[in-house]
Amino acid sequence: MNTLEMPKLQTSLDDEVEEVSKMLVEAASLNYPMLSGILQAIIQAGGKRLRPRMALLAAGVAGHPEAIDHLKLKQVAAAVEMLHTATLVHDDTIDEALLRRGSATLNSMLSGGTVILVGDYLFAQSAILITRPGNPHVVQIFAECLATICDGELTQIFSTRHWKQSREEYNKRIYSKTAALFATACELGAIMGGADEELVGRLRRFGHLLGMGFQIVDDIIDFQPSEITGKATGGDLRQGIVTLPTMLFFEMAEPQDADFVKKVVGNKAASDADIQKAVELIRNSKAFEAAYTEAHDFIQRAKDCLADEAESESLHSLLKIADYALGREK
Amino acid sequence: MNTLEMPKLQTSLDDEVEEVSKMLVEAASLNYPMLSGILQAIIQAGGKRLRPRMALLAAGVAGHPEAIDHLKLKQVAAAVEMLHTATLVHDDTIDEALLRRGSATLNSMLSGGTVILVGDYLFAQSAILITRPGNPHVVQIFAECLATICDGELTQIFSTRHWKQSREEYNKRIYSKTAALFATACELGAIMGGADEELVGRLRRFGHLLGMGFQIVDDIIDFQPSEITGKATGGDLRQGIVTLPTMLFFEMAEPQDADFVKKVVGNKAASDADIQKAVELIRNSKAFEAAYTEAHDFIQRAKDCLADEAESESLHSLLKIADYALGREK
Repeated sequence: MNTLEMPKLQTSLDDEVEEVSKMLVEAASLNYPMLSGILQAIIQAGGKRLRPRMALLAAGVAGHPEAIDHLKLKQVAAAVEMLHTATLVHDDTIDEALLRRGSATLNSMLSGGTVILVGDYLFAQSAILITRPGNPHVVQIFAECLATICDGELTQIFSTRHWKQSREEYNKRIYSKTAALFATACELGAIMGGADEELVGRLRRFGHLLGMGFQIVDDIIDFQPSEITGKATGGDLRQGIVTLPTMLFFEMAEPQDADFVKKVVGNKAASDADIQKAVELIRNSKAFEAAYTEAHDFIQRAKDCLADEAESESLHSLLKIADYALGREK
Repeated sequence: MNTLEMPKLQTSLDDEVEEVSKMLVEAASLNYPMLSGILQAIIQAGGKRLRPRMALLAAGVAGHPEAIDHLKLKQVAAAVEMLHTATLVHDDTIDEALLRRGSATLNSMLSGGTVILVGDYLFAQSAILITRPGNPHVVQIFAECLATICDGELTQIFSTRHWKQSREEYNKRIYSKTAALFATACELGAIMGGADEELVGRLRRFGHLLGMGFQIVDDIIDFQPSEITGKATGGDLRQGIVTLPTMLFFEMAEPQDADFVKKVVGNKAASDADIQKAVELIRNSKAFEAAYTEAHDFIQRAKDCLADEAESESLHSLLKIADYALGREK
């Protein structure tokens, strides 16, 4: 998704993340050698473990180290990452993720039905992990998050190739796609850390706003030249998905330029040249900078949620993740 | 799956099942008119609500009517049915189920990606329903069941087109496919009914054995002429899936007949005539009757689990379901 290195975070975090990764590997082990290998590759390709890190750090911010059951906290962190992985598998984007890391793609090795089942299996494993701590409230927050994610993906399918979308629709979509799980990671971490209700709410809000900013940055990166990002440019436009830079472009551009991009969005068979032209129109417009400003505002509002929190290594690391989310674009 | 009418069960049950159905409809409502209609059709096409009936009756057998929270019990029953529906959607068999009821098929109306998401959405709804009663033990049993189902479906994919399978493998497969959810329905119903641990275990065992017999009968029905069953004959053989009648046939038939069927199983491009011939060889063999005897034995063992139970309307209805499961074949 980016080439920017993760910043150095709280030292003890890496060990905990390592243990979360071990839990994930164990939960994804199966008796079929071939499939097991693929599952392990998916789990290992898990990248930066951003979501479990957020859960672990939110628990740290809660500030009751003596109250934390570290095994249960790690189970929750692992469940969040497993859910993320399962949605990636069903989202088909895992192909791209694996490809980026030089592995074969999932769909090239397995039939469609098997891919569905692999995703289902990972869903089931995330459900098992989230029940381990024996906290029904935690399970319920997790299940609601899953429903939100599914609802959002369905919305995306039904809004594809429609250039006319409200800001409200876009915000709802990126919330479902990204911010809901960020919010859940922070909320569950805070609960496992023994935070009071007010702080749980604030950490959830932090995750929510951070996730919104993170996804807008992702949507911006999609317009960057592939030399910089290492992935194809304009993937969203090609798929008929309207994201913030495009929406702002429709509002701010000359009518004939806006019309051109609208036609590209609505056209399944748009040529590479037309897509490229649309990408460049947007990237070189004021809309592009305006989208970045919006991402910046979300991240700032996220950080503001924790402005009055007592200094701690966990807090410091959480704020670094917020800066990292924004900095990926530069 | 069959033309046999469900037997008359405990009178109060129909009202409870009706309320469970309402819960399912509500949980599957979405804001996209077209998709919402399809989801409702899937839910309405839910057939006999066998699994929620088992959960409700198991609670009745537990014999502590004063201890039962009927809302929570119905939530559990609805979660079980929702999970069943979600697996059907991903299993693609929902197409067949809808077709049988004269509706359009799911895959003909939606793209593959949407079908996956619809299934995921129903999974999420089942997860939400199962968290409602706030009992982590219940959620955990449910999540383990989901993992078992997924594992079994993966096994099925990896064993397709291999004629050589052990009885152990077959039993594991039909347990995952059918008996695990039957067992879970009874176990969760028993827990919600306030049964002690011993009775919970016995009701789970009842559901398990009943599910084994039920699936064997299903596998037998697959060989019956379509004039009787209303569905295509030999679907399993066509897909290269070896079930009990075929396994017993390999053990009991003349070598040249067994070899013929083995070739059909292993051949993706087997002709309709060859499949029909294989079906008839099996249906007219002693293996076919032997498979039925095995189903009968499972059902009998299921009923034996409850032999010492005090007479009650719930018990009576549960035993009727067992007889019904077996009778579908005749």
